[in-house]
Amino acid sequence: MSEQDFPESEFAQRTERAQRAMHAHGIDALFFTTEAEVRYFSGFRTLFWQSPTRPWFLVVPARGKPIAVIPQIGAHLMADTWIDDVRTFSAPHPTDDGIGLLAEVLEPFSRIGMPMGRESSLRMPLADFHALTDQLPGTEFVNANDLVQRLRQVKSELEIDLLRDICQIGSRSFGRAAQLFYQGQTLKEAFRAFKIELLEQGADDVPYLVGGAGQGGYGDVISPPSDQLLAAGDVLMLDTGATKNGYFCDFDRNFAIGQASEPVRNAHRLLVDAVTAATAVARPGRTCADLFRAMAQTIGQGEGDVGRLGHGLGMQLTESPSITSFDQTELLENMVMTLEPSIDLGDGRMMVHEENIVIRNGEPEFLSQRSDPEIPVIGI
Amino acid sequence: MSEQDFPESEFAQRTERAQRAMHAHGIDALFFTTEAEVRYFSGFRTLFWQSPTRPWFLVVPARGKPIAVIPQIGAHLMADTWIDDVRTFSAPHPTDDGIGLLAEVLEPFSRIGMPMGRESSLRMPLADFHALTDQLPGTEFVNANDLVQRLRQVKSELEIDLLRDICQIGSRSFGRAAQLFYQGQTLKEAFRAFKIELLEQGADDVPYLVGGAGQGGYGDVISPPSDQLLAAGDVLMLDTGATKNGYFCDFDRNFAIGQASEPVRNAHRLLVDAVTAATAVARPGRTCADLFRAMAQTIGQGEGDVGRLGHGLGMQLTESPSITSFDQTELLENMVMTLEPSIDLGDGRMMVHEENIVIRNGEPEFLSQRSDPEIPVIGI
Repeated sequence: MSEQDFPESEFAQRTERAQRAMHAHGIDALFFTTEAEVRYFSGFRTLFWQSPTRPWFLVVPARGKPIAVIPQIGAHLMADTWIDDVRTFSAPHPTDDGIGLLAEVLEPFSRIGMPMGRESSLRMPLADFHALTDQLPGTEFVNANDLVQRLRQVKSELEIDLLRDICQIGSRSFGRAAQLFYQGQTLKEAFRAFKIELLEQGADDVPYLVGGAGQGGYGDVISPPSDQLLAAGDVLMLDTGATKNGYFCDFDRNFAIGQASEPVRNAHRLLVDAVTAATAVARPGRTCADLFRAMAQTIGQGEGDVGRLGHGLGMQLTESPSITSFDQTELLENMVMTLEPSIDLGDGRMMVHEENIVIRNGEPEFLSQRSDPEIPVIGI
Repeated sequence: MSEQDFPESEFAQRTERAQRAMHAHGIDALFFTTEAEVRYFSGFRTLFWQSPTRPWFLVVPARGKPIAVIPQIGAHLMADTWIDDVRTFSAPHPTDDGIGLLAEVLEPFSRIGMPMGRESSLRMPLADFHALTDQLPGTEFVNANDLVQRLRQVKSELEIDLLRDICQIGSRSFGRAAQLFYQGQTLKEAFRAFKIELLEQGADDVPYLVGGAGQGGYGDVISPPSDQLLAAGDVLMLDTGATKNGYFCDFDRNFAIGQASEPVRNAHRLLVDAVTAATAVARPGRTCADLFRAMAQTIGQGEGDVGRLGHGLGMQLTESPSITSFDQTELLENMVMTLEPSIDLGDGRMMVHEENIVIRNGEPEFLSQRSDPEIPVIGI
């Protein structure tokens, strides 16, 4: 018996919420192929998704528990979840990686919802998906993107507990920056030291760690770390998506190496001010666009390359909704969000700041330990 | 300018090989949505794929360099690769996450290949893919699975150098087992210690670490680690997919905690014998089914739950081909493979052993430092 991240009641509640929404949308079953959705409704957590060889399927019917259609290798682990109906196929299989079995499970349903829109992907071969729909000629497959995203956006208190835990691990790790980073260190070594610190502080994994460093700001926040040496006057930024029990933190911190110029200090203060401005409007009933406007007006610049100033957070590093000028998603109590304002500092340099919050009935709760307005100067 | 994993000539050669195969198959362009394929032809490496929000596209035309169609946030990093034609869209976008731009790029081609078969997935919203094909009514999209897999199966010497590097990091880390694992340690702590060791030995990341422990064998190799305590007589197995420069090792090691029973010793010897048997047939011209047979006959059991006894290895933890009874893929020089025999030890217990090799013209080259037939006893 492997350990479960949640009691059965958590999955029963998720499934009931889904089934109420399905009823309202006239959907008979939900069909999932992706890790986050399969885990959300089953509790099935494994790194085996790293291998592209085997597909994994979950079906949430209009009534009753979800049904798993999975490779034989996952049978033991799935049997430890709350799922009772686990159908397995031998995979890889010479001719049929579960499509026949899946068609049997889906056959009773006439209108099947699956995520087909923004942020979704199809984690099964397209040819197999076409074979499946060919075997179910009377079945309609419809886009259930909004339904599924809306469900997952609002977290339970148990989910928030896990998110608070990994955010605290992240905060404690950033708190050790002065012991970890120094002038003359390569970015690669700085990243390695920080990953090890996160693991030592209790993270299960560090699937995401990006950042950059440069004089008075950095130019790029999606490159892997290089052998560039940290120098006095650099601003070093690390942005981490570490996990514990399958839930992510996602926030960054900026550090001035040796010294901080006045423009750097001011930029950092302004970014923290932008988060404060967002905090004032982060209430149930307001929208993502409201959050965007609050931060953008504080910074006083356009949207820039990033195009969004935060997003949902949970089982994935980034989840819906996005904090953009055009996202009218209404904030609901217990949505977990990142606030991620950025400033263009000219000459191809920028600075980004990020915090993780829970929308509450009143002031939002910070999951990350809030950054001081003054940029920390380290490595002296 | 970020550091590149390969010189431009590597990508030119990959593209030329693809274009020769495309010509032979009457394919005008290849279209990719997945991390490994985009990186294979462009060199674009970033952890940003962790976020499901933004799609990334690459098109390999029949002549000339690939064309990237990507979110604006990746423009700097893509400009550092060998790709010249980088078209960007603002993402997330209120109405069009790059589909209009992509349709323009694909419009000149009448027969477009993309991976649609075994091991493939569609990393873009299905609704967007349908919108794309609707905008290209005269265009045929065909399954180019075999073509792309066959290209990627055969590694260049530069790729093999990277694979050797990460395999040596893995071997050095396993070599420290006696200092890392001990009786009374929780599996969680054992995993954490091993991840940190891999990072300290030079791994960039440890996206995959699974394993198990149990008296005389373990029951499950896909569960996350639990708080189970390591006890005398346990067999502990860790199976790691660590990465450096975007290339994976994938092998495991078994350790006896405190003492090893005769059945455990014999099982370990038999697994190493199975690898030796595979080594004798791992030659250009033989097949995956030949490798399967050599190992299965040595073990003397059926296929079991796993269904395969190894697979391709490279930019992904598992790649095609699979070492199964039915995979007739011909082995070619410079294919990198895992050999992964397993034994059913009864009472729900098993033992798995894995090594990483390169098919060479003659004896295969071991990338992992070969395991001794005697199971190491540690923690005394």
